[in-house]
Amino acid sequence: MVRHAPIVASVPHLLHGGDYNPDQWRATKDATWKEDMRLARLAGINTLSVGIFSWAALEPEEGRYEFGWLDEVLDLMAENGITAVLATPTGARPGWMSRAYPEVLRVNRDRTRNLHGGRHNHCLSSPVYREKTTAINTALAERYGDHPALGVWHLSNEYGGECHCDLCQERFREHLKGRFASLAELNEAWWTAFWAKTYADWSHIESPSEHWRGEQDIHGLNLEWMRFTTEQFVDFYLHESAPLKALTPDVPRTTNLMGTYPGIDYFRLAQVLDVVSWDSYPEWTGTEKDAERGARASFLHDLTRSLKSRPFMLMESSPSATNWRPVAKLHRPSVHLLQSLQAVAHGSDTVQYFQFRKGRGGSEKFHGAVVDHEGTEHTRVFKDVAEVGERLAALDGVVGTDTPADVAVVYDWHLRWALDDVKGMLQGATGYEATVIEHYRAFWEQGVATDVIDSSLIAEPGRLDRYKILVAPMLYMLRPGAAEAIDAFVQRGGTFVATYATGYVDEHDRTFLGGFPGPLRPTLGVWAEEIDALYPDDRNAIDWDGTAYEARELCELIHAETAETLGTYGADFYAGRPALTVNRRGDGSAYFIAARTGADFLADFYARLVADTGAERALDADLPPGVTAQVRTDGTTDYVFALNFNPTAARIDHPGGVLDLAPFGTAVIERPRT
Amino acid sequence: MVRHAPIVASVPHLLHGGDYNPDQWRATKDATWKEDMRLARLAGINTLSVGIFSWAALEPEEGRYEFGWLDEVLDLMAENGITAVLATPTGARPGWMSRAYPEVLRVNRDRTRNLHGGRHNHCLSSPVYREKTTAINTALAERYGDHPALGVWHLSNEYGGECHCDLCQERFREHLKGRFASLAELNEAWWTAFWAKTYADWSHIESPSEHWRGEQDIHGLNLEWMRFTTEQFVDFYLHESAPLKALTPDVPRTTNLMGTYPGIDYFRLAQVLDVVSWDSYPEWTGTEKDAERGARASFLHDLTRSLKSRPFMLMESSPSATNWRPVAKLHRPSVHLLQSLQAVAHGSDTVQYFQFRKGRGGSEKFHGAVVDHEGTEHTRVFKDVAEVGERLAALDGVVGTDTPADVAVVYDWHLRWALDDVKGMLQGATGYEATVIEHYRAFWEQGVATDVIDSSLIAEPGRLDRYKILVAPMLYMLRPGAAEAIDAFVQRGGTFVATYATGYVDEHDRTFLGGFPGPLRPTLGVWAEEIDALYPDDRNAIDWDGTAYEARELCELIHAETAETLGTYGADFYAGRPALTVNRRGDGSAYFIAARTGADFLADFYARLVADTGAERALDADLPPGVTAQVRTDGTTDYVFALNFNPTAARIDHPGGVLDLAPFGTAVIERPRT
Amino acid sequence: MVRHAPIVASVPHLLHGGDYNPDQWRATKDATWKEDMRLARLAGINTLSVGIFSWAALEPEEGRYEFGWLDEVLDLMAENGITAVLATPTGARPGWMSRAYPEVLRVNRDRTRNLHGGRHNHCLSSPVYREKTTAINTALAERYGDHPALGVWHLSNEYGGECHCDLCQERFREHLKGRFASLAELNEAWWTAFWAKTYADWSHIESPSEHWRGEQDIHGLNLEWMRFTTEQFVDFYLHESAPLKALTPDVPRTTNLMGTYPGIDYFRLAQVLDVVSWDSYPEWTGTEKDAERGARASFLHDLTRSLKSRPFMLMESSPSATNWRPVAKLHRPSVHLLQSLQAVAHGSDTVQYFQFRKGRGGSEKFHGAVVDHEGTEHTRVFKDVAEVGERLAALDGVVGTDTPADVAVVYDWHLRWALDDVKGMLQGATGYEATVIEHYRAFWEQGVATDVIDSSLIAEPGRLDRYKILVAPMLYMLRPGAAEAIDAFVQRGGTFVATYATGYVDEHDRTFLGGFPGPLRPTLGVWAEEIDALYPDDRNAIDWDGTAYEARELCELIHAETAETLGTYGADFYAGRPALTVNRRGDGSAYFIAARTGADFLADFYARLVADTGAERALDADLPPGVTAQVRTDGTTDYVFALNFNPTAARIDHPGGVLDLAPFGTAVIERPRT
Repeated sequence: MVRHAPIVASVPHLLHGGDYNPDQWRATKDATWKEDMRLARLAGINTLSVGIFSWAALEPEEGRYEFGWLDEVLDLMAENGITAVLATPTGARPGWMSRAYPEVLRVNRDRTRNLHGGRHNHCLSSPVYREKTTAINTALAERYGDHPALGVWHLSNEYGGECHCDLCQERFREHLKGRFASLAELNEAWWTAFWAKTYADWSHIESPSEHWRGEQDIHGLNLEWMRFTTEQFVDFYLHESAPLKALTPDVPRTTNLMGTYPGIDYFRLAQVLDVVSWDSYPEWTGTEKDAERGARASFLHDLTRSLKSRPFMLMESSPSATNWRPVAKLHRPSVHLLQSLQAVAHGSDTVQYFQFRKGRGGSEKFHGAVVDHEGTEHTRVFKDVAEVGERLAALDGVVGTDTPADVAVVYDWHLRWALDDVKGMLQGATGYEATVIEHYRAFWEQGVATDVIDSSLIAEPGRLDRYKILVAPMLYMLRPGAAEAIDAFVQRGGTFVATYATGYVDEHDRTFLGGFPGPLRPTLGVWAEEIDALYPDDRNAIDWDGTAYEARELCELIHAETAETLGTYGADFYAGRPALTVNRRGDGSAYFIAARTGADFLADFYARLVADTGAERALDADLPPGVTAQVRTDGTTDYVFALNFNPTAARIDHPGGVLDLAPFGTAVIERPRT
Repeated sequence: MVRHAPIVASVPHLLHGGDYNPDQWRATKDATWKEDMRLARLAGINTLSVGIFSWAALEPEEGRYEFGWLDEVLDLMAENGITAVLATPTGARPGWMSRAYPEVLRVNRDRTRNLHGGRHNHCLSSPVYREKTTAINTALAERYGDHPALGVWHLSNEYGGECHCDLCQERFREHLKGRFASLAELNEAWWTAFWAKTYADWSHIESPSEHWRGEQDIHGLNLEWMRFTTEQFVDFYLHESAPLKALTPDVPRTTNLMGTYPGIDYFRLAQVLDVVSWDSYPEWTGTEKDAERGARASFLHDLTRSLKSRPFMLMESSPSATNWRPVAKLHRPSVHLLQSLQAVAHGSDTVQYFQFRKGRGGSEKFHGAVVDHEGTEHTRVFKDVAEVGERLAALDGVVGTDTPADVAVVYDWHLRWALDDVKGMLQGATGYEATVIEHYRAFWEQGVATDVIDSSLIAEPGRLDRYKILVAPMLYMLRPGAAEAIDAFVQRGGTFVATYATGYVDEHDRTFLGGFPGPLRPTLGVWAEEIDALYPDDRNAIDWDGTAYEARELCELIHAETAETLGTYGADFYAGRPALTVNRRGDGSAYFIAARTGADFLADFYARLVADTGAERALDADLPPGVTAQVRTDGTTDYVFALNFNPTAARIDHPGGVLDLAPFGTAVIERPRT
Repeated sequence: MVRHAPIVASVPHLLHGGDYNPDQWRATKDATWKEDMRLARLAGINTLSVGIFSWAALEPEEGRYEFGWLDEVLDLMAENGITAVLATPTGARPGWMSRAYPEVLRVNRDRTRNLHGGRHNHCLSSPVYREKTTAINTALAERYGDHPALGVWHLSNEYGGECHCDLCQERFREHLKGRFASLAELNEAWWTAFWAKTYADWSHIESPSEHWRGEQDIHGLNLEWMRFTTEQFVDFYLHESAPLKALTPDVPRTTNLMGTYPGIDYFRLAQVLDVVSWDSYPEWTGTEKDAERGARASFLHDLTRSLKSRPFMLMESSPSATNWRPVAKLHRPSVHLLQSLQAVAHGSDTVQYFQFRKGRGGSEKFHGAVVDHEGTEHTRVFKDVAEVGERLAALDGVVGTDTPADVAVVYDWHLRWALDDVKGMLQGATGYEATVIEHYRAFWEQGVATDVIDSSLIAEPGRLDRYKILVAPMLYMLRPGAAEAIDAFVQRGGTFVATYATGYVDEHDRTFLGGFPGPLRPTLGVWAEEIDALYPDDRNAIDWDGTAYEARELCELIHAETAETLGTYGADFYAGRPALTVNRRGDGSAYFIAARTGADFLADFYARLVADTGAERALDADLPPGVTAQVRTDGTTDYVFALNFNPTAARIDHPGGVLDLAPFGTAVIERPRT
């Protein structure tokens, strides 16, 4: 365990603040900007993000920059002790650019070129767009590189989408030439003999299309397109970063991610970021459902932290309603503090919002904000924010602390892309992400810290050594090296858990031959012959340890080979056949859960595993449902965050005493690390 | 109160008839047309609408007119004492025109140009289309201007849709230059600094598009596009009208509207019509639901009448099934008479149908008609129509009478456009129109006559003087002058009712600053700090006057400032806070209902207001549920229409006696006006 | 009754096998192909279908053929006594062709041209595509015409879709000139005076389009487009066939159909096939629902058989999961045998699968197969298949036998196209196909053999002579000759049953005048004045024979003219009016069921008719629900197939003894024909 440096070297505090758009208020700036500073300080805000979507304000005509307003804003911020997260403005572009250079506009899957408008509507290959990006970023870095307010570079905003223009098609073919030694190898990997899809020439390859759904039937092509799109963003990020890195090498750079956004493999993109940041918008309901929402939000925090295994930034969150939800509900009292401390508990060193002040127009004008249209500090939401500011100010000790985990759960973008395409089981509703979170939640409810990693990290030499338990729900795709690393992990004494739908396909979505779970068959000691899909109302059961646990949706029919049968099916024509097995192998154990179950089974099963392996719990206590505890530590002092996601009070009886949590209540306990 | 002139000066009767398409029966005209006349007279029909969609029949080749068939038809009608509603044929055009001049075809939001076909598939800007329109309309007016059958000009049919071609784009930019003094003003009004949308040049402005949903995020642009489209129809109507007005100045001109069709601001369009007409297709079910359907149909009649505050035409209705409904149900016995007298009760001087005779082909061949495919008078529906003919013939005294109302409910197209775009609350399901009708229905069930007006009429000098009560549900947008007029109305002694979601934005969909309900804050004496959106199954309550009325969907958290709290919330974290207030101001009162309620609260609340203000009821009686009474009067004689929308009998015990209404039954009572 | 020749003259057995794609396994062919042969023989397989979608493998570059791999495969098959169903590869084409000749790509309804990819993505008019097709088919026939393995030609695969390119538009206009003597006749038939659609020139006619939904409103155009598309496939099939027919006149040709696929009139297409084949994928659930699924599958078998009134081929079926179902459920034990014998019971002389070996890639890689990815004979599914092989091998006597039927049910593509377009009743949900199957099922549950014929067969001279009962549910469209043939059938002593929604329109979707059911009014002795559509939860009743049977959805209000009233309505304003009538006419009877009922009424009603007419039942017994019995016979010996579609056991007590059927169990009884 180490204590990491603060994100902004000169600010040894948890950062508190959010997106700030003074450029929308230039008409009334004398009144508004100053008032903004007063209100920010009143709310305990020490950082503001500026310049996001400001390209039209910074470069109103081609080549003519207007930095005056930003100079003023940054100066004001510096005067008020507020650190700037300064954005490059490339998330949207001025209208003049689309008119002068139509090539910058994206081409959709249906091969139509977009009109100007919206966010992320640019071609990542376009030389013109890249040139304009370099110019504005260079100008920003030159002008503000030494500004005392500058803390972090925020590149663009929420990267996403894809482009199918001719330039991108050509780059895609280049990408493929890097991936396959020959067209024959590509044809074999993509199994193009199916439906006469064999490519006779590289130039015949086109990106996936909506024109003809059959085109998507080359799953290998779809996968490579997603990999290519990821690499396009990596490449564009590096391109955007270059002038910033050259001119301000010590200022950390990031771009804000979006949890499990499917369009980009974040494990890959994170490799090129200095610090990871993300935007979190859980849908709080004020009801019992918030326990499940809380688990999901925690999962996403842990995933984001695991991308680089170090403190991250909560770049955006809502202080109240999230305006685009079908039902834009207000945050109940205490919820704002709860979600903010939750982020810190899981490794964030910041609590930031979208947005500081509500705009008067645009589609986000009703999104929660620190300062409402009403304009004063006399609102419920403002007071909630100020309370968070106060609490964070008391947690300087947390800055840079670590979040050690004995357990890792696997979540993998490439696997997900394959399952999104799957024709079989329950089709697009086969449910990968929700299943991973169900498994994750069983640890979360025990207060067991969990990393979330993907197959590329599994295969990283030595990476698995830190874990006692590795859980890989629905490990449908085995990417290169993963099966070998998992087997070694087990042989060395690790506890591995796999489920139905494991080991079906390789990285090209080509099935393994010789019996599923493919390369993991010896590790798990089972052969999965068939998988049964159940209708929504159908139920089966896993009989284990004297209890009949409900099984549903997917039931795999397996043969225990070297494995021992622990549980069996309770019904249907496969009643009595193995449903839960363990394979003792080397010094470790490999469990196999053959069917989808409810949370009850997962809770009992993983409680047993935690007990067996001695995986660390934040508190040595049985936590009430909907309550979690998470630890941050520098190796000497533990900061235990107890979080209650219930609309009712909860009590934790732990060795250090009794802890009473109010509805949606929180507590932070400091204790020496033992 | 005045008695207005009959719509057709020479016909001092209620008009009875409908759309007639003899051009579809030219192959058998000798038999069919004569039989049509016999059947029309048998049904008590005194008007038929001809020439709608007849362009291909009237001008089969470019420039070659064929009027012979229409000559014959109009002569036959004149011989049989049937007044013609003669249409211009511009609702659809012949195929030769689309081939010769592709520019006449509309361009969709996705910027693709339509193929030929369908209705309303023409560009309103196209010089060629306008030239062709002038030519055919001139020819019609020249030929039939003096024909004894000619009664009313029916321009085109059900104006609708929009065009995004280059010609329309250019006109749109011209429209904008008329609306904004400068591009800077437009940018500020549309808040384009949001997402770098700032326009650097007028030419960069494009109409809303489907290409890229983000484009729609400029709500100000969307609003102006709808305003522009309305003006396009106004302009096209005037263009179409010009030759008719020049050649037949005494023949009234109309085009048939469609209730609350969202694409055109009918309050604006009505300004240029001589008489308002509309097409009413309520979905009668034969069950208890018809009470709600009846209220809605009445609302639409009242809205249509209020457009010009004088008798209107029911241009289309179905004598039985409406063929395009998901379930094309037959009218139950008595329903046809009920819906016909309902129209008259609310101010229509006509009862007209689509259609006189069912066509053999086309998508409307199964729509209800006076004469079925079977072809005789021996059908149930024909007898229903003949009964209406008989009843209307006995109501000559009603022609031109007025419909005085002490209450006005506000329905506003511009506001609706803004709410259709809203990102917040319940999004597109925020439910403006249904809410307005719920409030309207509380008066309707009391037999209280109600006008339906928009913000432009509110702001019209003196307009509000005629009302005792003004109800403006969800007055989200305050258009220029509205707040001032409402405040004056209150100060002068009026009773004003507003609700949650009031006073949020100006005419450009830009929020007010300083606290909602914006400019109405002093009038209402409340500050609306936040609005909570509830999930569909969630419930709160308004405790008022000893009763806990259900609240749901939207609950605004308000502070009573100068207002007095009448009712409070019953649950959730805002239990006990104000939910119903009144602000005594000047000589009047301004009520604020903070949450969405059921019909029970509105019934009780508005009954109290009617009693307090002395607003006139048609009958001095408590009407049974699902029954309404409406008055038409010339100031001397009242015609009271009692209408029972229940499938069961109903009794009204009123000062004049006991009135028994059969299921779906009707009665008209004549009495002296007091 | 006759015994037909075997499909492959040299193979006097039921064929057993399926689609085989050795071209996907060329990389490992030495191991895989030999193993395939071993496994096929082990499973009792005597036929394999090869070459489907092999164009890219057979002609990797334009004009360069590679037949070597296919030589090898066919030689191996011949060595192993396996008959080849050899495909032409035109279901998909190599990428080089789309690049070199973009005209081969289809144009969609929205007039966009597809990108390369998918299946059936070619223009059927394209001269280039036709030329390439002739070349490859000629080469195949020349090379393999004398190969000992060759048994059947399989043309393309699952014909479907349509093309809207300029070439097809031109051919469409030619088709129309063949259908109508003049443009005036077309205009009158299509009733184009409606909405000014009158065509002034043949060149103005365009195919249906998505651009503008109104275009579809010419139902006559839509109908002719479907007829044209059918003729395009007929023509293309004949084009494809020509070289095969010339070079191998004795080898039967087929293309595989898809039940009631709406895009092609299979009664027309079947006229040009030598043998009919189809692909059957019922959705078995393992529950009580399978009785209904079983009836539907039987209906489709009977429909397919009736296309040519002789044994057909079950070209594709799944040995287990159907991968593209929303829930890809495994076949329960016994289900595979059940569905296989079901096909034979209804007239199939083959049981074939998609697919022999699961591919490693592509969208069908998880579709059920004889050989799984695991690769051995040790799977449950392989054993199921081998069991079928064994059972079929014992049924040589069934080959070529007939399936005589006393009952015919009408299913008509043209009628369905018209009802798909209907604007009225319940719109697109008016429910033609499901209704036909409900009527069919009443016979199926009695073990009464049923043909399924269309209006063209009704009108075929002498065709109805073979039937005792003719049932035509919802005979909405009366195509030429149908009414006359039905009346003659009744007059000669036949029993005819019609329902609501009969006799509304002619072949151009133009309504009949003078009262529905139009030309059948004298035959049925009723006048159908109106039809009432009911909401989903609404119910009425038919009171018949002491029972009140539920009526729902559609209730026609009829007048019994010459007909006798047997049953009356139980509720609503038409209570007591006729709901079931019979018209005694000549020597026969014509029944009319005025409302949609549940299966209970149909079961009782048709049981009465079967008893009255003496229509033959497979077993002289009351079958339990969900059980059917079907007969195949050569006139001397009957093969009675008893099939239990219940998940529970069933017992049949028949004159020959007691027959106990296991869950999903089957039995074949041989008996002399009496």
